[in-house]
Amino acid sequence: MHVHPAIDTDLLDRLIVEVSRFGATPGGGLNRLSASAEDGAARDWLKALLASHGGRVLVDQVGNMYGLFELAGPGAPCVFAGSHLDSQPFGGRYDGAYGVVAAAVATFAVAAETRRAAGKPRCNLAVVNWTNEEGARFAPSTLGSNVYAGRLDPAPALAAMDAAGVTLGAALAAIGYAGTDVAPGRPLAYLEAHIEQGPFLEKAGRRIGVVEGNWGTVKYEVTCWGRAAHTGPTPMRERRDALLPAAELILFVRQLSDATGGALLSSVGRIDVAPNSTNVVAETARIFVEFRAVEASMLADVCSRFEAKARALEGDGVRLETRRTVDRAPGRFDVRLAGLIEQVAGERGFASMRMHTVAGHDAVPLAAVLPSAMLFVPSAGGISHNEAEFTRPEDLHAGAEVLAGALMRLVRDGLPS
Amino acid sequence: MHVHPAIDTDLLDRLIVEVSRFGATPGGGLNRLSASAEDGAARDWLKALLASHGGRVLVDQVGNMYGLFELAGPGAPCVFAGSHLDSQPFGGRYDGAYGVVAAAVATFAVAAETRRAAGKPRCNLAVVNWTNEEGARFAPSTLGSNVYAGRLDPAPALAAMDAAGVTLGAALAAIGYAGTDVAPGRPLAYLEAHIEQGPFLEKAGRRIGVVEGNWGTVKYEVTCWGRAAHTGPTPMRERRDALLPAAELILFVRQLSDATGGALLSSVGRIDVAPNSTNVVAETARIFVEFRAVEASMLADVCSRFEAKARALEGDGVRLETRRTVDRAPGRFDVRLAGLIEQVAGERGFASMRMHTVAGHDAVPLAAVLPSAMLFVPSAGGISHNEAEFTRPEDLHAGAEVLAGALMRLVRDGLPS
Repeated sequence: MHVHPAIDTDLLDRLIVEVSRFGATPGGGLNRLSASAEDGAARDWLKALLASHGGRVLVDQVGNMYGLFELAGPGAPCVFAGSHLDSQPFGGRYDGAYGVVAAAVATFAVAAETRRAAGKPRCNLAVVNWTNEEGARFAPSTLGSNVYAGRLDPAPALAAMDAAGVTLGAALAAIGYAGTDVAPGRPLAYLEAHIEQGPFLEKAGRRIGVVEGNWGTVKYEVTCWGRAAHTGPTPMRERRDALLPAAELILFVRQLSDATGGALLSSVGRIDVAPNSTNVVAETARIFVEFRAVEASMLADVCSRFEAKARALEGDGVRLETRRTVDRAPGRFDVRLAGLIEQVAGERGFASMRMHTVAGHDAVPLAAVLPSAMLFVPSAGGISHNEAEFTRPEDLHAGAEVLAGALMRLVRDGLPS
Repeated sequence: MHVHPAIDTDLLDRLIVEVSRFGATPGGGLNRLSASAEDGAARDWLKALLASHGGRVLVDQVGNMYGLFELAGPGAPCVFAGSHLDSQPFGGRYDGAYGVVAAAVATFAVAAETRRAAGKPRCNLAVVNWTNEEGARFAPSTLGSNVYAGRLDPAPALAAMDAAGVTLGAALAAIGYAGTDVAPGRPLAYLEAHIEQGPFLEKAGRRIGVVEGNWGTVKYEVTCWGRAAHTGPTPMRERRDALLPAAELILFVRQLSDATGGALLSSVGRIDVAPNSTNVVAETARIFVEFRAVEASMLADVCSRFEAKARALEGDGVRLETRRTVDRAPGRFDVRLAGLIEQVAGERGFASMRMHTVAGHDAVPLAAVLPSAMLFVPSAGGISHNEAEFTRPEDLHAGAEVLAGALMRLVRDGLPS
């Protein structure tokens, strides 16, 4: 018979309320950019929470936080569960924060269960908060988990600069999270609970998404270089307007998706123009482009068309520089862990479905180097990266319960075969 | 015989160097936004300069500075000469500052000549620095001269807010230029020297542009309202992307000009997107559109097409709001003053040509309520609103000499008939 540790749902509800105060916006969302003062306050809160439940908190050099619960004693293998506390500039309360809170509550439940039950646990647990998952302040996104996975060196990560010229290293130091602890060694497994950020669980009436893998993603930064000039007297034929090719590309990015009937997801969410003054022809315009697809071949085809279009827009004194900043192949999470999540959900009576994540998550870079998986809970209306983001408390509870059940099984039995 | 007061060309050269230090950029230009600390320093410098030459400096409630030289005594009519000390964020050294320096040097020359020569002058002179001509920090542009002309109330002018939420009133107070002096009464005439900011004088090999009037200008702010959403999991058909109609309009604005063979000047120099995060579908995108034409009918036709296009882009959950922020009819400067400038230029042996200004200048709102005119000097390559803006010293001298000659004539003889 399988043990399902009971999570403290009141505690979970309370923690969500508490963590939502750090960086709260008048619109009911969050502005908690990575390594900001608000992020620092949320980190302090998490540290106190974990310590008060018996965790030992380590902070590595890029600010990743690990709350260790040594259920099996020093030297035993560890299982990580977590997500991230940073948000978009006007993000929602659940994206990331839910996964950290669920990991904490589930870990507390497993720790209580192992103290109560007979038999020595095989594994330790750690609640993890990864630095700069969103990528809203520093590039790249999923920075902390990429460093942990050895896919990004700490030096360039710490040198990443925000729009105001502040480096991640300086920002972490300012909030007291330029850590000096050695990160814990690679765990046996990593589990992450997250809101879906899409509409499919809600539409299907399911409570738990068993995430099998991730879509492929390619991101570009395209910089258009023109020449500043007075928008009044400068004759039109002498203008080198950087904004025009940028506008062409914004529309082309959408057309590429339309041509696939929406199977390709594409966007330009950000454009930075300089000097961005009403009376001055744009000297530079930089756009941030994303393409996402399940099929690697669709992605490759779209990228070659996009790059050709960018080349074709050069001329008339305007130069374009196209830089691929993210190239994440479609990937699969650990099948054993996905099976475990599905099994626990079934045992608890929660209807589940298998799905792929379109968005990037910390579990994606980690899956490249260690067994990782995710579970999703529904997002109301599929709305995310928006202050109106919402998940019902009963769904938050369900996700944390499944996470606790899966962690319990890993702590007791190790990885399923 | 006409008296041509000799200007101090060494002083003019030195003043250009001095004033260029306030807000100097590494690229050789200026970042001296209206009512910034740098603008405050330039104002202090101007005040000291005028006072040291016997001027009495008044500052009105919107920060316009008037350096009075009472050559004819209190109560006599006055002639204003001036321009503005504020710049674009990465503007050039000559736009505005030249007109203030030329007015100062010309005024000093006329004052010396009237002291030397027999016969009482009829008029006083004032060197004027108008607040916020550029409109780069506060809207509208030519704010100070519009208030002086009675075309804009002081209260809304002082309430104008920059991108950081600082009002003009607060910014002026912070630099000590929230003046309490009553502005001097309407002058007999206003003369403004300025760099051309276009290529035509240079191409024609002329030294002095006699500005007969101004092009018509219409400016719009168009705000597109969409809905923030995650650029990953949100299905394409559920996205309400505010950036797409903005991009369409940017291209349409250029097409409207192309359709006139460039007779219509058009631009979008600025776009503000929120939240402007790579991973978030744009919730709002605001573009700042300008149309300029000599013919009022062309401008009216273009505006109706543009507004129709904006209406046609509404739908799919995206809403557009089109606001006309500037509607400046084509206008004429005072023919007597233009004739005087042309005559003085000819007497001094400077080749001149008649032209219209495409850009707005403080002389434009002033011309609506009092006799006003402008003279232009060449801009190298027609480059302006750019750190590379340059006018040769001999052309700067020529403009100041013509300005001094015209002021001398006005002070001695009053307005020509």
